[in-house]
Amino acid sequence: MSLFLRVVSLEEALGVIRNIGPAPAEEEILLGDALHRVLSRDVVAREDIPGFARTTVDGYAVRAADTVGASEGIPAILLVAGEVAMGREPGGALAAGEGFALPTGAMLPPGADAAVMVEHTERIGDELLVKRPVAPGENIILPAEDFARGSVILPRGRAISPRDAGILAAAGYERVAVYRRPVVGIISTGNELVPIGVTPGPGRVRDANGPMCAAFAEESGCRPVLYGIVRDDRDALGSALDRATRECDAVLLSGGSSKDVRDLAAAIIGEKGEVLVHGIGIAPGKPTIIGRAGGRPVLGLPGHPASAYVILHVLAGPLLSGMSGVPRRERRVTAVLAENIPSQKGRVEFVRVRLGDGRAVPCFGKSGLLNTFAGSDGLVQVPAGSEGIEAGETVEVILW
Amino acid sequence: MSLFLRVVSLEEALGVIRNIGPAPAEEEILLGDALHRVLSRDVVAREDIPGFARTTVDGYAVRAADTVGASEGIPAILLVAGEVAMGREPGGALAAGEGFALPTGAMLPPGADAAVMVEHTERIGDELLVKRPVAPGENIILPAEDFARGSVILPRGRAISPRDAGILAAAGYERVAVYRRPVVGIISTGNELVPIGVTPGPGRVRDANGPMCAAFAEESGCRPVLYGIVRDDRDALGSALDRATRECDAVLLSGGSSKDVRDLAAAIIGEKGEVLVHGIGIAPGKPTIIGRAGGRPVLGLPGHPASAYVILHVLAGPLLSGMSGVPRRERRVTAVLAENIPSQKGRVEFVRVRLGDGRAVPCFGKSGLLNTFAGSDGLVQVPAGSEGIEAGETVEVILW
Repeated sequence: MSLFLRVVSLEEALGVIRNIGPAPAEEEILLGDALHRVLSRDVVAREDIPGFARTTVDGYAVRAADTVGASEGIPAILLVAGEVAMGREPGGALAAGEGFALPTGAMLPPGADAAVMVEHTERIGDELLVKRPVAPGENIILPAEDFARGSVILPRGRAISPRDAGILAAAGYERVAVYRRPVVGIISTGNELVPIGVTPGPGRVRDANGPMCAAFAEESGCRPVLYGIVRDDRDALGSALDRATRECDAVLLSGGSSKDVRDLAAAIIGEKGEVLVHGIGIAPGKPTIIGRAGGRPVLGLPGHPASAYVILHVLAGPLLSGMSGVPRRERRVTAVLAENIPSQKGRVEFVRVRLGDGRAVPCFGKSGLLNTFAGSDGLVQVPAGSEGIEAGETVEVILW
Repeated sequence: MSLFLRVVSLEEALGVIRNIGPAPAEEEILLGDALHRVLSRDVVAREDIPGFARTTVDGYAVRAADTVGASEGIPAILLVAGEVAMGREPGGALAAGEGFALPTGAMLPPGADAAVMVEHTERIGDELLVKRPVAPGENIILPAEDFARGSVILPRGRAISPRDAGILAAAGYERVAVYRRPVVGIISTGNELVPIGVTPGPGRVRDANGPMCAAFAEESGCRPVLYGIVRDDRDALGSALDRATRECDAVLLSGGSSKDVRDLAAAIIGEKGEVLVHGIGIAPGKPTIIGRAGGRPVLGLPGHPASAYVILHVLAGPLLSGMSGVPRRERRVTAVLAENIPSQKGRVEFVRVRLGDGRAVPCFGKSGLLNTFAGSDGLVQVPAGSEGIEAGETVEVILW
């Protein structure tokens, strides 16, 4: 285990992060709780859908052969021999020369092979004038035409949308198999931190990273568990890490903006498991730690919220999304860069930008400020091999 | 109240729908429950943030004047007169010619006006060699520099992201004022319907619209309440509507694919309040009903799920989003149309398409099928004045 920063590239770090998360587990939940959850297996039709032939129009069930050549001038003349109510079985079969009145969605009587729209008929007592011919199968849906028993209705890996909820209901899935939400433990370290509800005294600030990491984990399809604020102390941090790795599927350890504290965090992760990465060629976020403790992935984030948030997007996102099976929500737009972004070769830089009128304006300024963070719309990524991006170039903005 | 279909344009219908929803109400909730909820008022800094001057680097607090002219060759020589621990007040003030060691984020001692990065210093016992000058204010954040007391941190109407959760925590907002989630009652009508858990007998189908409308309401920032399946019967529908309008802020009434049932729904809405629209120049969804009962907006959707979902997107979306304050999630992409879409002039048509390789392939086929619905990615809107869209044209696809 190495405690000095052997800086790896962003690609290497991403390679490590993609391999340390456990594969998503499964659970069965009620369809009513399943919005935006992800199917863990193909959903298959358990029966033919529909189970019977239905009309798709208000009108009459007929035999198509009886309507051949029908026109406004010379309509086909049928006998109205029955009526089918919605949700009921037809009273009997339809014979040649007959029509059964029925509403959209009703069951076709045996013997019928098409339906005529009411608009194309005229009824005089029991006599039905059909003014347009229909082809066999016209205006009806055959049994199993929608989904045949055993066919895949929705594929594994699909995040359930309202539309999918309707389709699953139609197919009788009162419960669905989805990926379980991984439990993510969140530890905030720092002697300077006080909880949200406390007014910080001199030298103190509130713990912003805890609630931010929790919300990020939630958005990534995980269930966050906050372990609160832990002092920068070997024993306190060690026992918090033990507890979190025992109770959770992964741990986000935030804080430690000074070198001493970062090194303490890395030392403790190393004691409990191994440090895989400590130092990445990115800015901000160079001192990020990727490790494993108690068999669980542990990600050590920078202390400042604006820097921590970049690492959440760049590294925690792929980790948690891989564990939860929930597709990344990350959206990207293109914009024209409004000002030069100078950059240092040899590291990937993430620069906050504000968007407006198709232009991306870099939010320069002191790194420790929240106000430019609050006012920004996303990040521009400057590649490691580049000395910067010039104003006027089209850039991709990672929205946050 | 009119029972026949006086068809209004989509624009007119949207005008009506935008005016019948009540304005969103407010509530206070815990920050931990606030992800994706919408701020109902500007969030204002209750105190200066930070409340004290802090460093943004690991290094030494100094007086900038003491470093003027410092260089590698001729460093400024200061006395290390103190140390500031993280989260603590400095032991005393800094005098001219002195430096205080301190980590990133620590409080600056009185008398200091800048900080020197540790990388630009060399320490020999109590002697500190400073090899680069710093300007007043360099590497520090002044009190109130991030947010001055009373300034707006996050604006009203903002949907709370993980980043915002961090910013709200930093500002001490343990609870936040957000728009209340409106309660949306969902009634499914139809004698043919059975609940999800039941295998439908001949002529019967499962209620897909109930769960679909519930998930759509949830996604639109509302709390759905399912009133189950109601028979196509004046008394049953009337009392369900009474109960739902008494208990909810709005009602989605789904089902009624046949004309008789639609007319029954319209008649009952008319009795309990008023029918504002019954018939819109769109396909699918022409027989959609917009009304008010018991003072609540009521939207009557088509019976078939694929048609109902179009109306959810086109009309329920603006209604519910207006009531919840939650911005629409609707996303649009452009694609090249792969096949002609013929359309009927005089009505807006919504055609389902599948996307692939930047092309949009129309999902034609029988209107009553769920499989083309399940396999589609979104909708192309053909304007009322158009006779169709030709293959090769670039179209906007409303993703669903």
